[in-house]
Parts: sequence; C-alpha cells; structure tokens
Amino acid sequence: MIESLVYRSGSVESYDDLGEAKAAQGTTWVHATEVTADERSHIAETFDLHPLAIEDVNSNVRAKTEEFPEFVFALLKTARLTRGDTTFEEEIVDDPVGVFFGSDWVVSMSPGTASMVGRVKNAVQAGDERLLERGPDFTAYRIVDVIVDSYFDLLDTLEDQIESIEEDVIESTEIDVLDEINSVRRELLSFRKLLWPAREALGVLARGDLKLVQESSEKYFRDVYDHVVQLVDLTETYRDLVSGARDIYLNSLSQSTNEVMKVLTVVATIFIPLTFIAGIYGMNFETMPELGWRYGYFAVWMVMLAIGIGMIWFFRQREYI
Amino acid sequence: MIESLVYRSGSVESYDDLGEAKAAQGTTWVHATEVTADERSHIAETFDLHPLAIEDVNSNVRAKTEEFPEFVFALLKTARLTRGDTTFEEEIVDDPVGVFFGSDWVVSMSPGTASMVGRVKNAVQAGDERLLERGPDFTAYRIVDVIVDSYFDLLDTLEDQIESIEEDVIESTEIDVLDEINSVRRELLSFRKLLWPAREALGVLARGDLKLVQESSEKYFRDVYDHVVQLVDLTETYRDLVSGARDIYLNSLSQSTNEVMKVLTVVATIFIPLTFIAGIYGMNFETMPELGWRYGYFAVWMVMLAIGIGMIWFFRQREYI
Amino acid sequence: MIESLVYRSGSVESYDDLGEAKAAQGTTWVHATEVTADERSHIAETFDLHPLAIEDVNSNVRAKTEEFPEFVFALLKTARLTRGDTTFEEEIVDDPVGVFFGSDWVVSMSPGTASMVGRVKNAVQAGDERLLERGPDFTAYRIVDVIVDSYFDLLDTLEDQIESIEEDVIESTEIDVLDEINSVRRELLSFRKLLWPAREALGVLARGDLKLVQESSEKYFRDVYDHVVQLVDLTETYRDLVSGARDIYLNSLSQSTNEVMKVLTVVATIFIPLTFIAGIYGMNFETMPELGWRYGYFAVWMVMLAIGIGMIWFFRQREYI
Amino acid sequence: MIESLVYRSGSVESYDDLGEAKAAQGTTWVHATEVTADERSHIAETFDLHPLAIEDVNSNVRAKTEEFPEFVFALLKTARLTRGDTTFEEEIVDDPVGVFFGSDWVVSMSPGTASMVGRVKNAVQAGDERLLERGPDFTAYRIVDVIVDSYFDLLDTLEDQIESIEEDVIESTEIDVLDEINSVRRELLSFRKLLWPAREALGVLARGDLKLVQESSEKYFRDVYDHVVQLVDLTETYRDLVSGARDIYLNSLSQSTNEVMKVLTVVATIFIPLTFIAGIYGMNFETMPELGWRYGYFAVWMVMLAIGIGMIWFFRQREYI
Amino acid sequence: MIESLVYRSGSVESYDDLGEAKAAQGTTWVHATEVTADERSHIAETFDLHPLAIEDVNSNVRAKTEEFPEFVFALLKTARLTRGDTTFEEEIVDDPVGVFFGSDWVVSMSPGTASMVGRVKNAVQAGDERLLERGPDFTAYRIVDVIVDSYFDLLDTLEDQIESIEEDVIESTEIDVLDEINSVRRELLSFRKLLWPAREALGVLARGDLKLVQESSEKYFRDVYDHVVQLVDLTETYRDLVSGARDIYLNSLSQSTNEVMKVLTVVATIFIPLTFIAGIYGMNFETMPELGWRYGYFAVWMVMLAIGIGMIWFFRQREYI
Ligand SMILES: [Mg+2]
Ligand SMILES: [Mg+2]
Ligand SMILES: [Mg+2]
Ligand SMILES: [Mg+2]
Ligand SMILES: [Mg+2]
Ligand SMILES: [Mg+2]
Ligand SMILES: [Mg+2]
Ligand SMILES: [Mg+2]
Ligand SMILES: [Mg+2]
Ligand SMILES: [Mg+2]
Ligand SMILES: [Mg+2]
Ligand SMILES: [Mg+2]
Ligand SMILES: [Mg+2]
Ligand SMILES: [Mg+2]
Ligand SMILES: [Mg+2]
Ligand SMILES: [Mg+2]
Ligand SMILES: [Mg+2]
Ligand SMILES: [Mg+2]
Ligand SMILES: [Mg+2]
Ligand SMILES: [Mg+2]
Ligand SMILES: [Mg+2]
Ligand SMILES: [Mg+2]
Ligand SMILES: [Mg+2]
Ligand SMILES: [Mg+2]
Ligand SMILES: [Mg+2]
Ligand SMILES: [Mg+2]
Ligand SMILES: [Mg+2]
Ligand SMILES: [Mg+2]
Ligand SMILES: [Mg+2]
Ligand SMILES: [Mg+2]
Ligand SMILES: [Mg+2]
Repeated sequence: MIESLVYRSGSVESYDDLGEAKAAQGTTWVHATEVTADERSHIAETFDLHPLAIEDVNSNVRAKTEEFPEFVFALLKTARLTRGDTTFEEEIVDDPVGVFFGSDWVVSMSPGTASMVGRVKNAVQAGDERLLERGPDFTAYRIVDVIVDSYFDLLDTLEDQIESIEEDVIESTEIDVLDEINSVRRELLSFRKLLWPAREALGVLARGDLKLVQESSEKYFRDVYDHVVQLVDLTETYRDLVSGARDIYLNSLSQSTNEVMKVLTVVATIFIPLTFIAGIYGMNFETMPELGWRYGYFAVWMVMLAIGIGMIWFFRQREYI
Repeated sequence: MIESLVYRSGSVESYDDLGEAKAAQGTTWVHATEVTADERSHIAETFDLHPLAIEDVNSNVRAKTEEFPEFVFALLKTARLTRGDTTFEEEIVDDPVGVFFGSDWVVSMSPGTASMVGRVKNAVQAGDERLLERGPDFTAYRIVDVIVDSYFDLLDTLEDQIESIEEDVIESTEIDVLDEINSVRRELLSFRKLLWPAREALGVLARGDLKLVQESSEKYFRDVYDHVVQLVDLTETYRDLVSGARDIYLNSLSQSTNEVMKVLTVVATIFIPLTFIAGIYGMNFETMPELGWRYGYFAVWMVMLAIGIGMIWFFRQREYI
Repeated sequence: MIESLVYRSGSVESYDDLGEAKAAQGTTWVHATEVTADERSHIAETFDLHPLAIEDVNSNVRAKTEEFPEFVFALLKTARLTRGDTTFEEEIVDDPVGVFFGSDWVVSMSPGTASMVGRVKNAVQAGDERLLERGPDFTAYRIVDVIVDSYFDLLDTLEDQIESIEEDVIESTEIDVLDEINSVRRELLSFRKLLWPAREALGVLARGDLKLVQESSEKYFRDVYDHVVQLVDLTETYRDLVSGARDIYLNSLSQSTNEVMKVLTVVATIFIPLTFIAGIYGMNFETMPELGWRYGYFAVWMVMLAIGIGMIWFFRQREYI
Repeated sequence: MIESLVYRSGSVESYDDLGEAKAAQGTTWVHATEVTADERSHIAETFDLHPLAIEDVNSNVRAKTEEFPEFVFALLKTARLTRGDTTFEEEIVDDPVGVFFGSDWVVSMSPGTASMVGRVKNAVQAGDERLLERGPDFTAYRIVDVIVDSYFDLLDTLEDQIESIEEDVIESTEIDVLDEINSVRRELLSFRKLLWPAREALGVLARGDLKLVQESSEKYFRDVYDHVVQLVDLTETYRDLVSGARDIYLNSLSQSTNEVMKVLTVVATIFIPLTFIAGIYGMNFETMPELGWRYGYFAVWMVMLAIGIGMIWFFRQREYI
Repeated sequence: MIESLVYRSGSVESYDDLGEAKAAQGTTWVHATEVTADERSHIAETFDLHPLAIEDVNSNVRAKTEEFPEFVFALLKTARLTRGDTTFEEEIVDDPVGVFFGSDWVVSMSPGTASMVGRVKNAVQAGDERLLERGPDFTAYRIVDVIVDSYFDLLDTLEDQIESIEEDVIESTEIDVLDEINSVRRELLSFRKLLWPAREALGVLARGDLKLVQESSEKYFRDVYDHVVQLVDLTETYRDLVSGARDIYLNSLSQSTNEVMKVLTVVATIFIPLTFIAGIYGMNFETMPELGWRYGYFAVWMVMLAIGIGMIWFFRQREYI
C-alpha cells in the first residue's frame, strides 16, 4: 500500500499520483507498506532509486546507511517476538524498512507492515510543525526514532521473561527451565546481531559527513544513536543475567545430586553394618555361645544402638545431616 | 579444460586459440577448469600473469584480492560438504578459483570443476546484454556472485543438520549426538575461516580503490560483500544454536544421573532399614521375648509399614518422587 | 533546587536570579539538584542549552562528553549500592549528573541529589583560591573529580563483600554462597559498564581538543582519567577474584560428592559380602556340614575378619580412607 | 661455524676471510651456525652490525624486522619438537636465526644449526641463477622461505598426534588421553605464539616500505607472508580439533559414570526389596500364619517374580536397560 | 633518602645540595628512595616538576610516560612476591618508581626502596663510561632496564611454583592444590596487569617522538620494550600452563568419583543377588522341598558361583574391573 503526503510549514496534502507528489512544492513523503514488486518498481522509477538498494529492502541483509549521489539510503529492521515453527517456541522476527531521502523528498518502504511508522504519519497529518518545516532529513529521523523506540518494548518483554526465569531457577531443576534459558539467550543473541549493524547505520547518519543531513538534524540522529548504544548495553546486561541464571540452575542440579547421595549414604551406612550383625546371629551353627547368654539379645541391641549413634555423630560432624 | 569467449554488445564468439581470443575486439573471457600445469603456463604466458599468482590458484592459501599493474587478481574458494577419510565423517572441502581481469579480458581458473561458474558462461552464451556490454569487471562480479550464492546452499544443509540435532538432544543422551554436534561445530568453524578472508577480498573489490573496477560495478561488488557479511552473521547464529544444543545435551546427562540416583536412593533407603528389622527377628537368640508375643508378627508389620510410609512422605516432601 | 554562585579571585557571591547571576562578572556556577522539568527549562533558556542535552540529563544514557558551539556538555553518573526490588537483593543504582561549561559559566544538574558535588560547593564558599581564580573548566574538573572519587568508596564495599565470599567458599557448599557470588559478579558488571563510557567521556576532556578547556586544566582532567583507568583495572581484578571464588565453590561441591561416595562405597563394600556369608549360614538346608563343625562359627568369624581387613587394606591403598 | 660465499650471475666463489668476501664484487653471503661470541663480534665488526641486534640473535626475543640505516635485520625462529625435561614429555624448542641484508651482502647467523638454511646454500653452490642474479634481498627471501616451510612439517607431526588422540578419546577414558590432549594443546599454543610475531616480521618485509627490498622481491616476501597466515589458520583449526576431542573425552567420563550408576541402580533396586521379603519369612515369630500355608513358599516366589518383572518393565520404560 | 650525583666523561661527584647539583656541569642524577612528603616537595621545587606528576609517584596509578615541556616523566612499578594479609597467602606487591629526565638531569623517586636501581648507581660511581658520557636519557634507560630485568626474576619464581603444581595435580585431588592453582593464577593476572601499561610506557620512550630521547638511545629503549613484550608472552604461556593444570585437577576428581562408583557397583551388584538367594533358603516355610534335597546346599553354592562368575565376566567386558 502506497501513501503520499506533501507538506510544508502550515500545509499537508495527500496525493494519489507519485509523479505529481514528487513535483509538488514542499517535502514529499511516500510511505509504502507490504510493498509488492510492482509498487517497488513504480517508486524506484519515480525517484530514480538504484535497483540494488530496492532489492535490499526486500531481502534479508543487515541494517546500513549508504550515500548515493542524489539521496541517502538507510535500511533498518523492525523486530518483534513471535511463536515460530522451529523446535524452540519463540524467536525474534525482523522486517526491513528502507528509508530514502533526497533534497525535498522521503521514501519509506517495507515488505512488512512497519506499523510504528504510522505514528510519524499521524503526526504529519496532525500538523506537527517540527515535522512540516524541518524537511526530509528530520522526517527520516522521526522514522528511525520510532523504530528504535519499539526495540525498548521488545527488550521489556525479554526482561520480564528473565525475571520469571530467575524465580524458576531457585525453585526447580526441571529441564524446562534450561529450555527457557536457552530460548531467551537465543533471542538476546538475535537482538544483539540486529542492534550492531543498526548502531553502525545510525553512526553514519549522526557523524555529519552526509551533505543531505542538515547540521541541526545531526544532533537528533546522534540522540537515536545513543539510544541504540544504550540498547546494546542493556542486551549485554541481560545476557549476563541469563548466564548467571544458567549457572545457578546447573549448580542446583549438582547440589541436588549431592543431597540425594548424602541421604543414601547416611541410611545405607547406618543400616548395612547393623543388618550384618543381625545376620551373624541368624546363622544356624550348632555352637554359638552368645545365643545362649541371658542378656545376649539385649547386648546385641546395645551394640547396634552404639554403632547407630556413633554413625549419626560421625555424619553430624561431617555435616551430612 | 580451457574455454574462450569473446563478446560485446550483441555478439558472442567462441575461440580455440588463446592469443587470437585475447587480440579479438570485445571482452575476452578465458575459463579454465581442472586446469593442468601446462594449461596454467599457457594462460600465464598469454595474459602475462605473475607466477606467484598462478601458483596461488593451485595451492591452499586464503581468499584475497591483489592489484597488479596490468590486472586485478581475486582468489576465492568454492566450498562443498563431503564424506572425508578422517575420523569424523563429514567435512567442508574447498577449491580455489582465481579470477584475473584486465582492461578488456577476464581469466577464471580452478584446479577443481568450479561448476557454478558454468551458470555465468551460459548467461554469456545466451546473450545476456548486461554481461555482454558491461565489460570484464562486471563478468568478474558475476563469477564471484555465483560462488558466494553457492555458500548459502551449503549453509542451508548445515541448518538442516542443526535442526535434526536440536530434536535429538531432547530425546537422547547417546554419545552419537555429541559426535554430530562436534561435526557440525567443526564444519561451521571451517566455513567461518573460509568466509573471513572472502569478506576481506570482496571488501577490496567493493572499496573503489582499484582503477580496473568501474564506478558502476562497485555497487555490485558491495552487494556481494553484504551477502558475505550476512553469511558470517548466519554462521555465528548457527554456532550459537549448536552451542546451545550442546549445553542441553550435557545437562540431560547430568539430569539423567540425578534421576538414576534418586531411584536408587528411594528404593534402598526404604528397604534397607526394613530388611534390618526383619534381620533382627531372624536372629536365633534363645531369649527374645517379642517372638512369643501374640501380635508380635502383626506389630512388626505395622512398624515396617509406618517406617515405609514415613519414608515415602519424606521423599515426597523433598520431591524425589 | 537551584543554587547560583558567582566567584572570582577573592570574592564569592550568591544569587537568586539566574539571569543576573549569568550577567555578573566572574565565574557563574548554577548547581541544580533533584531538578524538576520547570527548573530544567528555566536553566536551559538562560544558558541557551540544547534540548537534547537537557533531555539526556533526565534519562538513562551512557556517560559522554559533547562539544557544542558555545559550551561543553559532560554527562557522568553517580553510583551507589542499594537494596533493590528485583529477585537479587543488592544492585548498583546510578544517577546522571550533567555538567555544562561555557566561557565564564558552569551549570551542574541532576535528577538525583548528587550529594558529593556539595563538597565542591563548600570549597567555593570557603574561598578556595584555586577554584575562584581558575575559571569554569577547573570547577567542572572538581565536579567530575568528586564523582570519580566516590566510585572508589563503592569499590571498597564490593571488595569487603568479595573478602567475605572468599572466606565462605572454603567453609560451605550452601547455595547461598553462589547467590552472593552472582550478586557481586552482577554489581561488578554493572559498574564496569558504567566505567567504560566514563573513561571515554573523560578522555575527550583530557585530550586537549576542546577549546573551552585551558591547557593548564588538561593535566587535571588527565589525572581523573587515570583514576578511571585504575578503577577499570580494579574492577577487572575483582571480577577475577569472584571468578576464582566461584571455581573453588563449584569444586568444593564436586569434592563433597566424591567424599560422600567414598564413605558409602567403603562401608557398603565391606559389609555387603560379610552379610552374604552370614546369609549363607542362615539357610535352613537339612544337610549343611559346616554347621556341625566344632569351630565352624569361629572359622566364619575368622574368614569375615580376613575379608574385612583385606578390604580396609585395599581402600587404604587406594586412599579412600 | 662461518661460511662465506660471493656470487653473481654465472659465478660462485668461496672465501675464508670475511673482509675480502665483503669487498669482493657480487652478493656476499656470510652464513654462521652454532655461532660463538667471538664469531659474532668478528662478523659484527666486519659488517658494522648494531650490538643490540647481534645480542637479539643470541637471546630469546620474538621474531621481528628492524630497519637500520645501512641494512635490514630480520629475526626468525626455527622450531622443532623435542622430548623436554619438564613434567610434560614433548615440547616445541625454537632457535633464533638472524638475517641481515645490505646493498650487496647478506649475513645469516644462529646459535643453533639452522639446518634448513643449508638447502639455500646448496642452491647457490649449484648455481641456481635466480639466486645468483637477484641480489641479497632475494637470498634473504629464500632463507626465510625455507624456515617457514619447515613449520609445515612440524604442523604435520602435530596433525598426526591429533588424529591419534581423536581415535583414543572414543575408545578410552584413561587419564593418559587428557595428558596427551594437554600436551598437544600446549604445543599448539607455543607454535601460535611463535607464528604471530613471524607474521608481523614478514609483513614488514612484504609491505614495500623498506628501501633495501626491491619491488620485484616484495611479491615473494608477500607469498611467504601468506604461508604464515595460512599456518596461523591451520593452528587455529587444530586448536579446535583438540578442544573438541577434549569435550568428547570429558563427556565419555560423565557417560561412563552414568552407565555405572544405572547398573548399580537396576540390580540393587530389583534385589533389595526381594531380599526384604525373604527376610520377613526368615523371622522366628511363633505365630506367622503364612509359614504354615500349603502354597506359602510358592506364593512368595510368585510375588517376588511379579515384583522383579515389574521392576524390569519399569527400567525398560525409563531406558535404563 | 636523597642522593645526588653529577657526572660526565671521566668524572663523578657527589653533592649534598640539590640546587648546586643541578647547577653543576655534567649529568645530574638525583635518586630519592622511601621519599617523604618534604623531600618530594623539595625536589619538585628544584627541578620544577608538576605537582600531579609528583603525586602519581606516591599513589597507585598505572605505569605511563608523559611528555612535559621541560622534561619527560616515566612511571614504572617494581614488583615482588609477598605473603599478604588477605585470605590468600601470597600476592604481588608493586611500588611506583618515577623517572624524570630533562636536558642535563635525571630524577628518580620512589616511596619504596627500589633496591635494584642501586645497581645503576654503583655503575655510575664505578665510572662506567657509557653511563658517564651518554647523558640523562641513557641513565633513564638503565634505570627502567634494571626494573624490567627484576620482572624476569619474579617470573622465574612463578615458573617454579607452576612446576610444583604440575607435579601435585597428578598425585593428588586435595583441595589445597586448587588453592595453589588459584593463587598462581591470580599472581599471573596481577603481573599481566602490571606489564600491559609498562609496555605502553616503554613504547612511548622507544617510538622516537620525544625530543629529549636521543636517536642513539631509542634502540636501547626499544630493547627494553622487546623484553616487556617477551614477559607478556611468558605470562600468557604460564597462564595456559596453570589453566591446563586446573583442567587435569578437575578431571582427576571426576575420574576418582567414577572409580569409586565402579568399586561400589561391582561389589554390590555381585553380592546383593547372592544375598537374596541365601535369604530365600533362610525362610522358615514349613514346605520348602529344596531344603530336604540331598545336594540342595551344594546346588545353591553352584548357582551362586555361576552368578558370581557371570557377573565378573560381565564387568570385565565393560572394563569396570
Ligand atoms: Mg559468550
Ligand atoms: Mg559476560
Ligand atoms: Mg562470565
Ligand atoms: Mg557471561
Ligand atoms: Mg556477556
Ligand atoms: Mg556471555
Ligand atoms: Mg563462540
Ligand atoms: Mg557461541
Ligand atoms: Mg554464548
Ligand atoms: Mg558466539
Ligand atoms: Mg557459547
Ligand atoms: Mg563456541
Ligand atoms: Mg579471567
Ligand atoms: Mg580465567
Ligand atoms: Mg574470569
Ligand atoms: Mg576476566
Ligand atoms: Mg572474567
Ligand atoms: Mg569466560
Ligand atoms: Mg580454542
Ligand atoms: Mg572451540
Ligand atoms: Mg577452542
Ligand atoms: Mg579457537
Ligand atoms: Mg573457539
Ligand atoms: Mg582455549
Ligand atoms: Mg572451557
Ligand atoms: Mg588460553
Ligand atoms: Mg588460559
Ligand atoms: Mg585455556
Ligand atoms: Mg590465556
Ligand atoms: Mg583463560
Ligand atoms: Mg575459561
């Protein structure tokens, strides 16, 4: 779906024809979502976009910023969590969003819905003066800004999952917890791989080398850049939380095995020698003087009690019980 | 085997003699596969290629791009999975492909079959205008492009193997799974070592320093470069999947040992004390008053039941059963 | 709360009105703590500070130094340990402190209390000549210096915790120790992530590129920079101490399991065969010649003793006991 | 031992006196092996070599290339495997070889035998025209080339050891295998530490900054550089093989413990309850009605069989047997 | 304690007054050990040293080289092993040594004894011509050289400890060995952290940017730099030895647990079924036909022997015994 807006200070108009929109005075913004091959070619022809850049919007390459003679091309990725069809239940799905901007036009284009960009469109239609008067690079900034803002939401979801894991590892040694841990670890890894190129791409926009980015807009791109750096930091922190939770989980298992062994050892070590003694006096030898002693049975009980108490004292000393 | 094509916009001709092919007007492409020592010298003489570059095509060095005064030399590797003769069953085998291009000629040369390059040759013979008219650097781009495309196929095979492993680790603690994991881990490592130099080599071609690469071709080399970067990313992701699968495998083993110990501990801890009690009343002392009690046998059963139920309650509390 | 001081060699005055303070001759220092949105805008207007810089002081971005045409903006973080509301008990909480300085003014601003900056304010009010005469960049240096000094106090607390852990791991295999270890490990990680950007930010101040930093002040910023580098070193050392303590803890657990198994093995291995022998002569076969032997019972005891002593000798050899 | 050769296209002469050899027309090559302190000073005086460079040839510093006003000094290391006198049996021993070359002379010098350099000497004496006519930098190239070639032989030996380890880890859990693994791991680490500086040293020779290296020779030094890079790659690959073998070894041990526990658990869990039942009917209570039942003994056998079969079914379900 | 020497070719004089010493013709070397606050200020005034540099000599910052307009300031650390007061017994203690050198003077200063610098002082007093005639930068070189030489002694001590550990890990699984391993690991880490800044500091002295370092002295600083690089290499090697020893230690423990379990499993698995059989014929049922058989007792023995031998054969097959 293609939408075209042309705006300048105090005025916003909607156009159906791309050529007219481009020719109209003011900033022309063409926003294409769930874009088809035909729509892509149509826009590319109108704004003279390079076929390789158009192709990148439709494929699975990393975020980047490239300078062309007549325009700047920034490719970013939207990210959302989804129940996938692989062995693991949840994963991060990303959609590319291409943002092209020239001297008086912006083109944004995605094979997905890029729903958060709608917020910028609404602001333009609502007549937000900063958008109307500051030109195409500021509109481009707002688009990448809403995309990066949506990353924070995704990371909040992951943070909740990590908190739930941190509670689980203390209570349970079920292997499900390890699955959850691995799932979050993978999502954080995917997210990190998405953030690093985005960081680079925004660095190029913020650095001030691009002649199509006004000096007053650079500070704004720098601000989004700082947010991405902060996201990278958060991701690293969460990776460490997950890694710590995994350590606790694995340790709980070792501790559990240790506890189980202690129970067995205490019980078996106390009763096996006692059973042996009982076995002795269960033998059927004709000549076993103790069997005839008056207090023989009582004495055996005493010996057994002494051994049992000695064993318990020994295990208490070793802190087995 | 040596094939020579000379082409320009609208015309493609095949030549038998290398000298004639080189002299003919248009782009001359000499493609040599399963190349012998004689063929190598013959081509080297005709196109005045440096002996060290020729030697590199026949040996086991890393991918690279080198600029010579009269030509550019790019060395890439084809990669395929093969059942090897080492201890481990499968491994990545690579073959070097040397691509030399000058002002109006391209030479491609491999000790292997470099079968995917055939697709570019077919496109030339089918009269693909972009190839015919854009000169030797574009032909070189198409050659490295088909080689890099073939990497994606190889990575798809590895992805299938990883998915199969991820299913296996949940079901089984057999040591075969660890062998599979190690095999894929090694293949990913080999592949990564193949990709890094390729990335560098393509970076040189894309950077725009080489005077034999036209400005319009740079974007195309940049596109292949982006694909290699994406392959590096995928390889890292797969490495993490394998690493996660290995963690789950090792944990399953610890969990299994823990379970086995719990079974032993529960059964032994319940029955060893009971057997001791039975042993007591199996003793043959002359004076054992309990033996004569009317409900002695019944009382012993009750005591045993009480101990057994107490033990089961204790183990339920500790979540052993 | 906003406080305004204007000072020059030999004179310190307090102002209520920001505009007057700015216009007055001498160095103007405006220090705003627990700053509200209104106060932020008021200061920003008076000193013409960029909205994005003002916003950074109120949000959660990394430490940094940015040069604006009329002023330098340094953002640092205060850090303190606090009992948090997450699963883990203690964590590092940081508050941003923004320091802006122009040709004859300094603005310091924090959403928190930034209590240590009070020490610099006191020094100014007490008439410390070095502060009064050396201008705004030296005042800025003193502010970042007290912030970095407070990091050393925090690290001392962590060092105490690590020493307590090092004693605990030797005595105990309780899982609480692992929790403590993980808690300190996380705090060190948080602290490290706070230090790295601070290091960069101070590097910019010390490097001598900023025209608002006098040559004589650079050495002072370089000195704070050295302290941050030293803090990074200490943090790494503490990370290694914690990592070593964790190794010892995990090893103690393995060792404990090993010991427990040895106890069980020694007792069970000695008494199980003896109980078997007793069982043999407890059988009720009509024809069991040994039962009638005169010294049968004595002989069985001798055999049992021999086996027991042999076993003990075997275990001593293997160093099980 | 000092040998002096003077050669130019078509002529090779041997000299006894170093001064004469230096003065003679053509390339002078002085090759000193197992060099004594006196020989070192004699050569240093004749060719005016710097005392610190001379000292480096006799000590244990890293490979390097240094440019002096009148000559280039390259220090490389020969490497061989040897049975050492430390706790571990085998280790890599290296000997420094210093190569100095000026405008018309080369000096090679080693406290060891540097036996592979003999091959270059033989080629000169056999009248290899490329060596005779291309000057001192080409001779220096041939010397470093034979040294680097000998690294491949060493790595072949390590590869054989790794293959033997890979077979051992599958068959055995003896601790000897871990010793072998550690030994190879250490050798690979030593070798890697030897390669990295060599890579740097050759990079300097290949880079084309040195005015004593002719442009035509640079390609050759670049070729040796590529070989060293390839050796670094191989070393990394072998490190990963060893690391994988170690994982399999450690896992085999865990698996073995798991198997051992299963055997114990199955046998003990089946027979301990049965022994308890036998113990019950071995008690000597006067009133035990079951003992008088006609089919009591048969019934007990039936119960025991039922329990045994139930247990086996339970263990089959859990895949313990 | 302050000592002042003034020397030139053929002459060495001792001075009491710093001002006179500075004014006297020749190289003035002021060497201050266990320096007090007063002594520091006195020297700083005489030679016009910057207060921040003086402060660094008395505090705990990293080694560094800084260029001031009138002098160069190099800060190094002496290192020695000492029995500390922390939980761990031994640690590396370092003392800063500041070396300042101007056009005709050197100042060396330490809060410690810096005893190895005495060797340079003795060489001056003994009239070592190289020191007397080559000026202040060469004296500074000799000071840093003896400090770096002393690092090799410290590393020799650590090497001895590692060799002792390598012997211990093979013989013992006592937790003391892990303590020793951790102690050496920590010392190596401390030492490495000391070496890295020293490497940087020496790099600055060797690089040839400092106008107070003569060209002829650069080669000497480069030589010390090479020694530090070599120390870094050795430290890494020792870290790997320690890491390998730790692996062997941990593995020995797993192996020990495995062995212990095998002993228990073999004995228990053989005798538990046999004890069950004995228990069967110890039951008191009135009707147990086997008890009356003539060779019943003999048959039971045969069955038991068959089971025992079968078990042993089974365990031999599995290589448990
Ligand atoms: Mg990691
Ligand atoms: Mg980490
Ligand atoms: Mg970690
Ligand atoms: Mg981690
Ligand atoms: Mg991490
Ligand atoms: Mg990590
Ligand atoms: Mg990895
Ligand atoms: Mg990984
Ligand atoms: Mg990881
Ligand atoms: Mg990774
Ligand atoms: Mg990993
Ligand atoms: Mg890995
Ligand atoms: Mg570490
Ligand atoms: Mg470590
Ligand atoms: Mg560590
Ligand atoms: Mg570390
Ligand atoms: Mg660490
Ligand atoms: Mg680590
Ligand atoms: Mg490795
Ligand atoms: Mg590895
Ligand atoms: Mg590895
Ligand atoms: Mg590796
Ligand atoms: Mg690795
Ligand atoms: Mg490693
Ligand atoms: Mg490891
Ligand atoms: Mg290592
Ligand atoms: Mg290591
Ligand atoms: Mg290691
Ligand atoms: Mg290491
Ligand atoms: Mg390490
Ligand atoms: Mg490690």
